[in-house]
Amino acid sequence: MEEEKSSLLLTIAVLGGTGKEGKGLAYRWAKAGYKVLIGSRSSERAVHATSEVMEKLEGSTSVVGMENLEAAQLADIVVLTVPYAAHRETLESVKDALKGKLLIDVTVPLVPPKVSKVQMPAAGSAAQEAKEILGDDVQVAAAFQNISHEHLMSEKDVDCDVLVTGSSKAARTETLTLVEAAGMTGWDAGPIENSVVVEGLTSVLININKQYGSTHSGIKITGVNHDK
Amino acid sequence: MEEEKSSLLLTIAVLGGTGKEGKGLAYRWAKAGYKVLIGSRSSERAVHATSEVMEKLEGSTSVVGMENLEAAQLADIVVLTVPYAAHRETLESVKDALKGKLLIDVTVPLVPPKVSKVQMPAAGSAAQEAKEILGDDVQVAAAFQNISHEHLMSEKDVDCDVLVTGSSKAARTETLTLVEAAGMTGWDAGPIENSVVVEGLTSVLININKQYGSTHSGIKITGVNHDK
Repeated sequence: MEEEKSSLLLTIAVLGGTGKEGKGLAYRWAKAGYKVLIGSRSSERAVHATSEVMEKLEGSTSVVGMENLEAAQLADIVVLTVPYAAHRETLESVKDALKGKLLIDVTVPLVPPKVSKVQMPAAGSAAQEAKEILGDDVQVAAAFQNISHEHLMSEKDVDCDVLVTGSSKAARTETLTLVEAAGMTGWDAGPIENSVVVEGLTSVLININKQYGSTHSGIKITGVNHDK
Repeated sequence: MEEEKSSLLLTIAVLGGTGKEGKGLAYRWAKAGYKVLIGSRSSERAVHATSEVMEKLEGSTSVVGMENLEAAQLADIVVLTVPYAAHRETLESVKDALKGKLLIDVTVPLVPPKVSKVQMPAAGSAAQEAKEILGDDVQVAAAFQNISHEHLMSEKDVDCDVLVTGSSKAARTETLTLVEAAGMTGWDAGPIENSVVVEGLTSVLININKQYGSTHSGIKITGVNHDK
């Protein structure tokens, strides 16, 4: 008899999934039962990253590596974890495949070398830029920008909450489900215009890491009952 | 014999100090031994707010009420806690009195009725706007934007950290001293450009209050040792 886990039948593509953040999220979602595709510009690198994740998963076969476009085509939900320099190009290359789907943008628009100073693109934030590029046929949410990759590929608790913004309540709700599935606490942080706060918070945390000697500062929401 | 507490000889003016946030901060700094001036457009209202604070202080005489300009003239450090609608006007009215001093801007540029959506002024944030208005002769820091006034007028712990941004390291350091004096944990959050994150975070917290049923959500920094 088949188990009832309809949301777990969803396929998630992690584009730019060969980076540490992408691999870590892929690992956690695969572990939670989702079918996960790791996308990259090079299918070879995607396959390599996939074997790394598979090794951690010890035998599960729910992760497959391929080129970004193919991954986007095959997925129900597409997660973007590329460096900001590749943000626009990657989105334009998969735009048609995203129609009717949810894009979760993890991109932080850091401008080297001043990565501890908030410097947003003209659209207001990376997520708003994604929405501009993708148009009305794609719902865009933004999440995970403040999560240090350090503990994603382990069983350790991630001591950082996830603030979720998005272009619709439905986009935020679906993203919050994936946050919980990855073992983190998520909060509905409002419309996509609020993504400037969450993306910019990464520069603030980089600054705090530097000033106070850490590699993984994060934030927790206080004064409110999450399960209410 | 006089006690050695040089930094406590500083005089702090709280402009717009008749509001709940301003009164609460005035109370905490007076309690810590600072001389505090409460400023308002109306000296009558300033004096009224002062008696409220004095009553809580039980006998101490370190708070005095007066008009904003006089308070700014007499103070070493000036704290601005006006609604955003009065931000520019108040700054222009005290600009000359601020030369060579530190301004700590607490203003959040909320745009009613959509206060849960981040909407920054053209300068990038209220604090950057203050810096533009005041010019090079005034150091500007920004702090306390995320603190709910609820617990300021009591001995209760404030369950929210204070992210401090500012136009110089010295401005941030001096502000961090006042954060600690007010009984809160402060973090150097970097240059004044980063104030967009902290001001915008207020809209995110308003959103979280609404969605999850609270009146005083806040944030705590995790994963880093504050005293290191």
